Amino acid sequence: MRITALSGGVGGARMLRGLASIGTVDLTAIVNVGDDDVIYGLHVAPDLDTVIYTMADVHSNARGWGRTDETWQVMEELDRFPFDSTFRLGDRDLALNLYRTTRMAQGAMLSEVTREICKVFGIDAAILPVSDDPVRTKLLVDGTWLDFQDYFVRRRHADTVADVRFAFVDAARPGPGVIDAIESSDAIVIGPSNPILSIWPILAVPGTRKAMRGKRVMAVSPLIGGSAVKGPLAELLPNLGYSTDTEGIVRSYGDLLTDLVVHTGDEPDRPVAPVIHVTDTLIPKADSAARLAREMVAWLG
Amino acid sequence: MRITALSGGVGGARMLRGLASIGTVDLTAIVNVGDDDVIYGLHVAPDLDTVIYTMADVHSNARGWGRTDETWQVMEELDRFPFDSTFRLGDRDLALNLYRTTRMAQGAMLSEVTREICKVFGIDAAILPVSDDPVRTKLLVDGTWLDFQDYFVRRRHADTVADVRFAFVDAARPGPGVIDAIESSDAIVIGPSNPILSIWPILAVPGTRKAMRGKRVMAVSPLIGGSAVKGPLAELLPNLGYSTDTEGIVRSYGDLLTDLVVHTGDEPDRPVAPVIHVTDTLIPKADSAARLAREMVAWLG
Repeated sequence: MRITALSGGVGGARMLRGLASIGTVDLTAIVNVGDDDVIYGLHVAPDLDTVIYTMADVHSNARGWGRTDETWQVMEELDRFPFDSTFRLGDRDLALNLYRTTRMAQGAMLSEVTREICKVFGIDAAILPVSDDPVRTKLLVDGTWLDFQDYFVRRRHADTVADVRFAFVDAARPGPGVIDAIESSDAIVIGPSNPILSIWPILAVPGTRKAMRGKRVMAVSPLIGGSAVKGPLAELLPNLGYSTDTEGIVRSYGDLLTDLVVHTGDEPDRPVAPVIHVTDTLIPKADSAARLAREMVAWLG
Repeated sequence: MRITALSGGVGGARMLRGLASIGTVDLTAIVNVGDDDVIYGLHVAPDLDTVIYTMADVHSNARGWGRTDETWQVMEELDRFPFDSTFRLGDRDLALNLYRTTRMAQGAMLSEVTREICKVFGIDAAILPVSDDPVRTKLLVDGTWLDFQDYFVRRRHADTVADVRFAFVDAARPGPGVIDAIESSDAIVIGPSNPILSIWPILAVPGTRKAMRGKRVMAVSPLIGGSAVKGPLAELLPNLGYSTDTEGIVRSYGDLLTDLVVHTGDEPDRPVAPVIHVTDTLIPKADSAARLAREMVAWLG
């Protein structure tokens, strides 16, 4: 079955690992770039890297970001200098970012560099940045638009967000292969990612949402009992006018979904448009991710 | 005594360490930026860093560049990626370059960042990049102009150089304090640096040479018995039309020098314009550098 998945960081990456592991899926991942930024002069792409590290089984689950077997020599030295070094990049993580930055300075597109990095990490699935053009998620906090990494890392996503926008997105073109991957897929799946911060920026790139029309689109709800497994989703939803439950998740996707997978007990109180599938959506390990992937493929038939 | 020194990397840095250590010198260093480049997206400034590391006593004498107590985590990981990683930056060295690049991306000038770095390393002497504007040393090899780091690091300065030029230098303005440091000094001293690659780019910045007119200018010859302690000087001199001896060094400085310090046995065969001072110019350690500095201060009277 040919599946194209939309993904943010950790949740989406875990679903991708499951889908890639079961052997019956021809998988393409379209990954959010709204969190990308320039940090210490380097082009960082947190969601792409989380996807790559997770699929290569070198993502640190304990830390929630970056590499396993990581060292921190550069950061320890960097802390001597009089500037903001809140954004932590381990030594191995830094190497990848130095590679990406060098290649992009040489004129390579993000999609091209991502392909090269996937090869180094032995990843067979196609990992596509949703756009090679910049898209930057901004969050309105106390009347000021914050950069994503300021909000998420430096201020530890503790602020009340009044609104979200995706700077430059109107001029962003879908990356090479993105529209084709959507159109030629048997189904679109959306991991248990934050709809607002991880999937909205993908859907905001002109052409992506339209290409999904008439497609089977199955999302996995990122909520379990009204809480997010990771990140600020449970606070973001009500601040932006959505309930913190299955209905709120459905509404956050507009009319996009044909199917929604929810955690046992999270069935909606009132009828919703998408077909609801119920299972255990907590997939921290490779075996649980494979089990969910097999269930999803069966439901997608 | 108020001394302003012109310096490239290792040789000049060792003389600076000597001058700073003897307690009688109010020292300003004007440092070559012709070797600066963008490597892995980072602004590297090899001569400035060699000066800072040497004066802070954390320069690796064994390696000849970079830091003592260095680790190589990032470089080891970088070697997995399919690109040229010949240019080695240890983890601590990388941290400094990440700091410089971040600050310059924020709009800070190289001179300002250098001052901040000196503070971190506890250096009291004023270390001034000759210019905040880019100056890039280019070398003509087999009809092609090579970038300095391509010539020096990637090709290990093994090529025959037909000519040297300093790109952008005509538009480069002397950095803050540079002309004032020259004009207000009691003497200018030039370390045992490569005149062509380290000092010519300083003298090529419009205004610097003119500010030295009428000044006492004492250079230390970088040759010992017709050989360079380090680097490609002995090959460069004849290729650019200079003899590989004291006379050649004098000629390479045009009419700039009033005094030249040469190693014992390297007295010129024929009379030369500058006053010749003879001593042991090999100054690998702090004590020998201090001894030479005291002798120079005595000669400058």
